[in-house]
Amino acid sequence: MKKLWGGRFERQIDERVHLFNASLPFDMRLYDEDITGSIAWARALYQAGVLTAAETEAIIHGLEQVRAEFNNGTFVFQPHDEDIHTAVERRLTELVGDVGGKLHTGRSRNDQVATDFRLWVMRAAGHLLTQLHELQQALLTCAAEGLTVPMPGYTHLQHAQPVTWGHWLLSHFWPLVRDRQRLQRVQRDTAVLPLGSGALAGTAYPIDRDTLAAELGFRTISPNSLDAVSDRDFAADFLYVTAMLGLHLARLSEQLILFSSREFGFVELDDAYSTGSSLMPQKKNPDTLELTRGKSGRLIGHLTGLLTTLKGLPSAYDKDLQEDKEPVFDAYDTLIMALPVMSGLIHTLKIHPDRMAAQLEPGLLATDAADYLVKKGVPFRQAHELVGQAVRRAETKGISLTQLPLSDWQEISSYFTADILDTLTVEASLAARNVPGGTALSALKAQLRAAREAIGM
Amino acid sequence: MKKLWGGRFERQIDERVHLFNASLPFDMRLYDEDITGSIAWARALYQAGVLTAAETEAIIHGLEQVRAEFNNGTFVFQPHDEDIHTAVERRLTELVGDVGGKLHTGRSRNDQVATDFRLWVMRAAGHLLTQLHELQQALLTCAAEGLTVPMPGYTHLQHAQPVTWGHWLLSHFWPLVRDRQRLQRVQRDTAVLPLGSGALAGTAYPIDRDTLAAELGFRTISPNSLDAVSDRDFAADFLYVTAMLGLHLARLSEQLILFSSREFGFVELDDAYSTGSSLMPQKKNPDTLELTRGKSGRLIGHLTGLLTTLKGLPSAYDKDLQEDKEPVFDAYDTLIMALPVMSGLIHTLKIHPDRMAAQLEPGLLATDAADYLVKKGVPFRQAHELVGQAVRRAETKGISLTQLPLSDWQEISSYFTADILDTLTVEASLAARNVPGGTALSALKAQLRAAREAIGM
Amino acid sequence: MKKLWGGRFERQIDERVHLFNASLPFDMRLYDEDITGSIAWARALYQAGVLTAAETEAIIHGLEQVRAEFNNGTFVFQPHDEDIHTAVERRLTELVGDVGGKLHTGRSRNDQVATDFRLWVMRAAGHLLTQLHELQQALLTCAAEGLTVPMPGYTHLQHAQPVTWGHWLLSHFWPLVRDRQRLQRVQRDTAVLPLGSGALAGTAYPIDRDTLAAELGFRTISPNSLDAVSDRDFAADFLYVTAMLGLHLARLSEQLILFSSREFGFVELDDAYSTGSSLMPQKKNPDTLELTRGKSGRLIGHLTGLLTTLKGLPSAYDKDLQEDKEPVFDAYDTLIMALPVMSGLIHTLKIHPDRMAAQLEPGLLATDAADYLVKKGVPFRQAHELVGQAVRRAETKGISLTQLPLSDWQEISSYFTADILDTLTVEASLAARNVPGGTALSALKAQLRAAREAIGM
Amino acid sequence: MKKLWGGRFERQIDERVHLFNASLPFDMRLYDEDITGSIAWARALYQAGVLTAAETEAIIHGLEQVRAEFNNGTFVFQPHDEDIHTAVERRLTELVGDVGGKLHTGRSRNDQVATDFRLWVMRAAGHLLTQLHELQQALLTCAAEGLTVPMPGYTHLQHAQPVTWGHWLLSHFWPLVRDRQRLQRVQRDTAVLPLGSGALAGTAYPIDRDTLAAELGFRTISPNSLDAVSDRDFAADFLYVTAMLGLHLARLSEQLILFSSREFGFVELDDAYSTGSSLMPQKKNPDTLELTRGKSGRLIGHLTGLLTTLKGLPSAYDKDLQEDKEPVFDAYDTLIMALPVMSGLIHTLKIHPDRMAAQLEPGLLATDAADYLVKKGVPFRQAHELVGQAVRRAETKGISLTQLPLSDWQEISSYFTADILDTLTVEASLAARNVPGGTALSALKAQLRAAREAIGM
Repeated sequence: MKKLWGGRFERQIDERVHLFNASLPFDMRLYDEDITGSIAWARALYQAGVLTAAETEAIIHGLEQVRAEFNNGTFVFQPHDEDIHTAVERRLTELVGDVGGKLHTGRSRNDQVATDFRLWVMRAAGHLLTQLHELQQALLTCAAEGLTVPMPGYTHLQHAQPVTWGHWLLSHFWPLVRDRQRLQRVQRDTAVLPLGSGALAGTAYPIDRDTLAAELGFRTISPNSLDAVSDRDFAADFLYVTAMLGLHLARLSEQLILFSSREFGFVELDDAYSTGSSLMPQKKNPDTLELTRGKSGRLIGHLTGLLTTLKGLPSAYDKDLQEDKEPVFDAYDTLIMALPVMSGLIHTLKIHPDRMAAQLEPGLLATDAADYLVKKGVPFRQAHELVGQAVRRAETKGISLTQLPLSDWQEISSYFTADILDTLTVEASLAARNVPGGTALSALKAQLRAAREAIGM
Repeated sequence: MKKLWGGRFERQIDERVHLFNASLPFDMRLYDEDITGSIAWARALYQAGVLTAAETEAIIHGLEQVRAEFNNGTFVFQPHDEDIHTAVERRLTELVGDVGGKLHTGRSRNDQVATDFRLWVMRAAGHLLTQLHELQQALLTCAAEGLTVPMPGYTHLQHAQPVTWGHWLLSHFWPLVRDRQRLQRVQRDTAVLPLGSGALAGTAYPIDRDTLAAELGFRTISPNSLDAVSDRDFAADFLYVTAMLGLHLARLSEQLILFSSREFGFVELDDAYSTGSSLMPQKKNPDTLELTRGKSGRLIGHLTGLLTTLKGLPSAYDKDLQEDKEPVFDAYDTLIMALPVMSGLIHTLKIHPDRMAAQLEPGLLATDAADYLVKKGVPFRQAHELVGQAVRRAETKGISLTQLPLSDWQEISSYFTADILDTLTVEASLAARNVPGGTALSALKAQLRAAREAIGM
Repeated sequence: MKKLWGGRFERQIDERVHLFNASLPFDMRLYDEDITGSIAWARALYQAGVLTAAETEAIIHGLEQVRAEFNNGTFVFQPHDEDIHTAVERRLTELVGDVGGKLHTGRSRNDQVATDFRLWVMRAAGHLLTQLHELQQALLTCAAEGLTVPMPGYTHLQHAQPVTWGHWLLSHFWPLVRDRQRLQRVQRDTAVLPLGSGALAGTAYPIDRDTLAAELGFRTISPNSLDAVSDRDFAADFLYVTAMLGLHLARLSEQLILFSSREFGFVELDDAYSTGSSLMPQKKNPDTLELTRGKSGRLIGHLTGLLTTLKGLPSAYDKDLQEDKEPVFDAYDTLIMALPVMSGLIHTLKIHPDRMAAQLEPGLLATDAADYLVKKGVPFRQAHELVGQAVRRAETKGISLTQLPLSDWQEISSYFTADILDTLTVEASLAARNVPGGTALSALKAQLRAAREAIGM
Repeated sequence: MKKLWGGRFERQIDERVHLFNASLPFDMRLYDEDITGSIAWARALYQAGVLTAAETEAIIHGLEQVRAEFNNGTFVFQPHDEDIHTAVERRLTELVGDVGGKLHTGRSRNDQVATDFRLWVMRAAGHLLTQLHELQQALLTCAAEGLTVPMPGYTHLQHAQPVTWGHWLLSHFWPLVRDRQRLQRVQRDTAVLPLGSGALAGTAYPIDRDTLAAELGFRTISPNSLDAVSDRDFAADFLYVTAMLGLHLARLSEQLILFSSREFGFVELDDAYSTGSSLMPQKKNPDTLELTRGKSGRLIGHLTGLLTTLKGLPSAYDKDLQEDKEPVFDAYDTLIMALPVMSGLIHTLKIHPDRMAAQLEPGLLATDAADYLVKKGVPFRQAHELVGQAVRRAETKGISLTQLPLSDWQEISSYFTADILDTLTVEASLAARNVPGGTALSALKAQLRAAREAIGM
C-alpha cells in the first residue's frame, strides 16, 4: 500500500495498523467540508502566488467533480485511503493529474482537519437549532392549550401546591432557551479559522488568512498556530451542550413517562408515538420517551470520554485528537433524531384534565391555610406549625383537610374563623401566586408571551 | 429534636437520617449569601406590606448580628440545625424573638437555597477570574522573555519544525482566554434571581421581584417558578468551565513535566515549586505540576457526577439537588489553589535555551526542504516524497539531513542545487512562517500584543 | 519550614505550594494503618539485621504511644507536617530520639502509602459488607412479610402482569448479592503487599516480604516493584463497586419514591425516615430516598474522576496518584451512611396491599388471555394479535377486558369459549408462572429460601 | 408498517419514531446468538409439551436456514424489522409458515434480548482473553530479551534509581494479569440465564430452565424474573474491565511514546507500526500508541454513559436498557483491534541499550550513598540529609555526584571513606535490590518465571 507520506519509510505499514489508524469510516462525513475548505485553500494559494490561475481553475474544477461524485454516490474509496483528506486528494489527482499534488502546499492535515471539523460543527449546531426551535414551538402550543388547566404541583414527587398544565410544561421550555443560547455560542466560538497554521508552526506561504476566514464563513482567525491544531475546545463545548440538551429532554421524558402511567393518567401518547409488547397484548409503551431519557447517558458519556482523551495532551497535534469526531457525530445524530420525535410527541399529546382534577386534593392547600394565618398576624413559622397540626388531625380522622370541622381548626388556633374553609380552594390558591413566574392567570399569560418572544414566535 | 417543619409529624426523625440529610457540614459556606438574601427578602416583605418598618428593622438588625457572629467565629451551631438556612433563622429568632418567625413568609428553602447558591457561584467565578488573570499575566511575562528563543516544535512528541519558547508558551495562554470568556458567561447566566418562586408555584405575596433582583446584584428574574427551583444549569456550567480550565492546566503541566525531565532539560522549576523524596536524596520533583495534572480528573469527575445526579429528575425541587454544592465547592477550592501556584511556578521558571538549541537538529527542517522544491515548481506531494527519500538516505548513512552531500540531494532530484544547504537553517525556517499565528518574529510580536490586549494588560 | 527531604534544596518551598501539595487534611485518616504498617516494618528491619532488638523495641513502643495520642485525641499536628507519614515519623522522633530516624530505612513513602491505603480499603470493604448484609436482611424480612401480596408488575412503567410485593422487593435484593461478591473480590485483590518495593526498584535490605505480608494480613506480595508503587487498580475497583452499589440503591430508591407518591400510594415511609417542608405544612417527603438516588451521581463521578486521573500516567510513582484517596474516602463515607439509613427505612416501611389491589385491573391479564388461546393450539403470534383486538375493543367501549361480553370475544375468535372469563384472574395469573424466578407461590418460597442462603441467614 | 405487537393499536407508528426506536442497525450483530437461543427455546418448548416434535423440527430447521442466510450474506432485512429478534422471527415465518408464530410462546423480547446479549458478551470476553494472552506473551518475550539491560528508573518523570528494561516492561505486564482475571470473572458472572423470565413475571409454561441453561453454556439460572430482565450489571462489568484494560494500555503507550521521542531515544518503533506526516517528510509518528492512549477516553466514556443510563431505572424492563449494546460493542471493537496492534508493535520494537546507558548518570545512585551510611550506623533520616548535601555540592560545582572529590564527602560526614566511590555503581545498585519484585538478577529471573506461569507460558 502506498501512503502519501511514504518517502521516508523503508517498509510498509502493517495492515492491521492501517485499519486501526484509519479514520475514513467516520470522517467521510466531512467530505463536503473538506472539499469546500480545499477550494478556498486553492484560491488562497492563487492569491499568494503559489498557484497559477490555470492550476487553480483545474484544481477547483476537479474538486467540484469529486464533490459531485460524493453527492451522487459514485465516489469509490480505495482500500488504502487513510482518511477523507487523502481520499479526496487521491481522487483529485486521478482527475486532474499532477497539479493535484500542488493543493497540499503549505497546508497540513493538522490544520485541514481542524478546519473541516469546525465547519461541520458550525453546520450541525445550525441544524440542531432549527429542530430545537420546532420543539420549543410544540411546547408553547401545547402549553397554551392547557395554560389554565389545574393540576397538582409536586416537589419530592409529593403533592405540594396546585399549578397548571401550562405552567408545568413551560418549566421544561425555559431550559431549552438556555440550550439555545449555548448552541449559538458554540456556533460562534467554533467559527475561528485554524487553516494557515500548517502542521504546527504556521504556513510558509503568504496566505491571507483573514480573507480565507471570510470566504469560509469563519468569524476570525486562530491567534497561535500550535494552539490552532490542538484546540478541541469547540468539540468539548459542543458535547457539553448536547449533554445539557439531552439532560433537559430526559427530565421532560421522565415526567411524561410518569404522567402517562396508569396511576397518574394525566397524559396519553398518540399511538404513533407508542409501541407495543411482543408478549403482552395490552401494552402501550412510551418507548420514545424512555429512549430519550436513556440516551442522556450516552451524551454524558461522550463528553466524559472526550475530556478524558484530551487530558494530559501536549499542545500541537497528537493522534489522540482523532478521537474527537465519533462522539461529536454520535451526539449530533442522537439529538437530530430525538428532537423531532419529541416535537411530534408533544404535538400529538392528549392531556386528561379530569385525571389531573381528580388528584387536586385539599392537602395541596395547606400552604394557603398558613398564609391565611399570616394575614392575621401570626408569624409564618407558627402558622406553619399550626397548619401542620391540622393536617395531622385530618389524617388521624381519615378525612381531608377541608373536611376538618371548624371546631377542630379553632381548637388548634383561635385565629381560624369560619371563612377558613372558603379560603381553601384550588382557584384561590392559583390566583394568589400572582408574581412573575407564578400560577396566577395574568402571570401565566405574561410568561407565555415572554416565552414566545424568546423564540421569535 | 425539634424541626422547623415538625407540626405534621407524629414521631421524630431518626438520628442517622438527620445526619444523612444534613447539608450543614458543607452549606455553612453559604452563610454570608444566606444572610444577604434574607435581608433583601425582609426589605421586599416590607415593601409588600407584610412586615412593618419596625419588624423589618428588627430582623435586619438581628441578621447582621448573626453575620457578625459568623465573621468573628462566635456562631454556635446547634446539634439539630439541618442546614445553614435553618441555623440562621434559628439564631435570628433567639436574638430577636417571635418576629424572626415572620422572615420565612412567602419564601421556601427551595427558592432560598437556589438564590444563595447562585450568589456564591457569581462571587466564586469572580475570584477565579482574578486568579486566572494573574496566571495569564505570568504566562505573558515568561513568553515575552523567551519570545524568540528557538526550540523544537513537536507533533506526536516527535520533532516537527522549529518554533520558539514564546510561541509555545503562548499556545497555552489562548485556551485560558477561552476559559475567561466561559467564566464570564457563567457569571452572567447565573445572575438570574429565583427568589419569589416559593416552593414551586410562586410566592403568594406581592413581592417586587425585579427590585429584589437589582438589590442582590442579579441581572434579571427567573421566568417560571417550577423551573427556578429545579434549575441547576448554572452549577453544571460552572463545573464544565472548571473542568475545561483544569484540562488546560493539565496540558500545560504535562508539557512542563516533560520539559523538566533530565532528558529534555528545557526548563527548571524553582526550589520553591519543587519537592524532594523521602528516600532518594537527589530528587527534585515537579509535584505541583503533577498534582495539577492529576486534579483535572477530579474536576471532570465532578462534572460527570452532577450531570448524572440531574439525569431523570422532574422539574421543581427534589432532594437530589442537594448534591449540587459539594462538587462546585470542591472544584472552586481546587482551582483557587492551583491557579496562584501555577502563576508562581511560571514566574520563577528558569528556561535553558542551550538545551533547547542542542535539540535543534536538521530533521526539523525537512519541511523547508520540501518548500524549497515547491518554489522551484515541484508539486508539493512530489516534493514531500523526494525529501522523504533524502531523510531516509541520511538516516541510512547515519548522518544528519544537512550533512548529506550535495551529490546525494541531486541524485534524488536535479531540482536540488547548491543553495539547498544554505536554505536549511533554523533561522530561515522560523522566519519563513510569517503568517498570523506563525513563528516569524513580526508574527510573534503581533501575537504577543494581541494576547496582552485580550487581558487588558 | 524544614522538610524531611530537604538536604538537596537551597531554598524553602513556597507556603502556597506546601498547602497545595499537602495531603494531611485527608490522609490523616490513615494514621492507624500507617502505624500498624510501621510497626511491622520495624520488625522486618530487625529480622533483616538492620535494627537491634533495643532499637526495634524503642521504635515500636514509640509508635504505640503515637497511636495512643491519635486515639485519645492528644496528637498535635505541626504546621509543616506534609502528610500522615511524616507527621507520625516526626512525632516518633520527638518521643524516641534519633533512633526514630532509622525507621524509614529501606522504605519509601511510595511503598508505604500504597500499603497504608490498601490496609484501609481492606478494612473499609469489610465495614461495607457488614452494612450491606444488614440491608439484605431488612429486604428479606420485608419481602417475606409481603411475599404473596399481589401488585401490578410494570415494564416501561406501564401495567404489564401481576406480580407480588415480595417478588418485586426481591428483585432489588439480588443485585446486592452481586455487589457483595464484588466487595469480597475487592477485599481479596487489595490484599497484595507493596511494602518492600522501595521508591520503585525494591528495597536494598534483606526484608522477608512474605512474612511481612502475613503479619499485616495481606494474602500475597506484589511481584514487581515499579508496578507495586503505581498500581491503583484496587482503588478503581473499589470505586467501581461503590458506583454499582450506589446504582442499585438508586434504582430501589426511585421505585420507592414512586410507590410512595399519592398517585401510587403502595408504601408509606415511617415518620422517622421522612422530612417536612419549610413552607408547606402538609408535606412528608422521601428525602432519604432522593438523596440516596442523587448520591449515585457522586459515586459515578468519583469513579470517572480517578480513571481520568490515572489515564496516561507512567508506571512507578507520580504525584497524580495522591488524588486516589479523597474519592475513595468519600465513596465509603457516602455508603456507610446510606446503607444503614436504607436498612432502617425498609424495616419501618408500611405497605398498603389495598392500594396495590386497587390497581390490579384486568389489562394485566391480557397475556393470560393469549396463553389461553395458545393452549387451544393457536400460534402465539396470532393469539397475541387476537387478544390485542380484544383489548382495543374493550378500550373503545370504555370497559375493562374482563367486562367484555363473551360475544365480543367470540367475534374476535371462536377459540374463546365461556371459560375465558373464569381464566382471567390475578390469582390464576400468578399461579401460572411456576418456574424458578416466577410469581407462583412455590417459586417465590424457593426464591426466598435461596436468598436467605445467599447471605447465610 | 405492520408491527408484531400491532393488535391493540389503531394507528401506525410514525416513521421517524420507528427509526428512532429501531435497534436493528446495531443489534443485528446478535443474529447468531439470537438463533442459537431460539433453537434452544424451541427444544425447551418441546420438552415442556408446548410444541410437537414435528413443529420443533420445522422451527429448528427454519432457524438454521435463517442462520445460513446471515452467514452467507443473503439475508434481506425488511424496512420495518424493528430489531434482530423480529427480523429473525419474520424470516422464520416466511420460511416455515404459521408454526413460526409458535416460537415466541412463553417468551418475551425482554428475556430473549438479555439472553442473546449475555451470550455475546461471554463470547466477546473469550476473544479478548485470547488477544490479551498474545500481548502478554509479546511483553514477556521482549522483557526477557532486555531483562538485564540497565536504564534509568523514573518517579515523577525524574531520574530515581537504576532499573532494567525487563523490569520496567514487566511493570506493564502485571496489570494485564489483573485484567485477565477481571475478564474471566465477567465471563463467569455473565453466564447466568435470564431466559424463562418472560416479560417480567416468569414464563407460564413448564420450561426446564436448568436444562436450557446447560444447553446454552450458562453456568446457572437467574433467581428472580424481574431482576433478570433489568439486570445489566454484566454489561457494566464488561465496560469496567475494558476501561481498565484501556487504561493499562494507555499507560504503556504513554511511556513508549516518551521513550521513542528523540530526547529519550530508548526505543524505536518498526516502520510497520509508525506513520508519516502529510506535510513533514522526516516524521515517523507513534500514531498507534497515541490512538491507543486516546481511546482510553472513549472506553471510560462508555462506562460512564451506561452507568448514567442505568441510574434511576426501576427494576423490570424499560426501553432505556436498549442503550446497553452500542457501548459494549464499541468497547469490544476498540480493544479487539488495539490488542493485536500492540502485540505486533511490542514484538517488533527495537530497544537502544546505548541510549539508556547514556542516561545512567550518578544522581541515580544517591540512595545507594545513603544506604552506605546506614550500613555504618547512621540513621537513615540523617543519611538522607547528608547525601542531599553532597548532591547539592556536586550540583553547585557543576560536576556529577561520583566526580565529587573524597574531601568533599568527608567534609560532609566523616563516615564517608575511600570506598564510597567504588560503591556507587549502577551494577551495585541493581544487585543490591535483591528482594522479590526488585532489580537484582535473581529477583528478575524469578519474576519472569512467575510471569510466565501466570499466563501458562
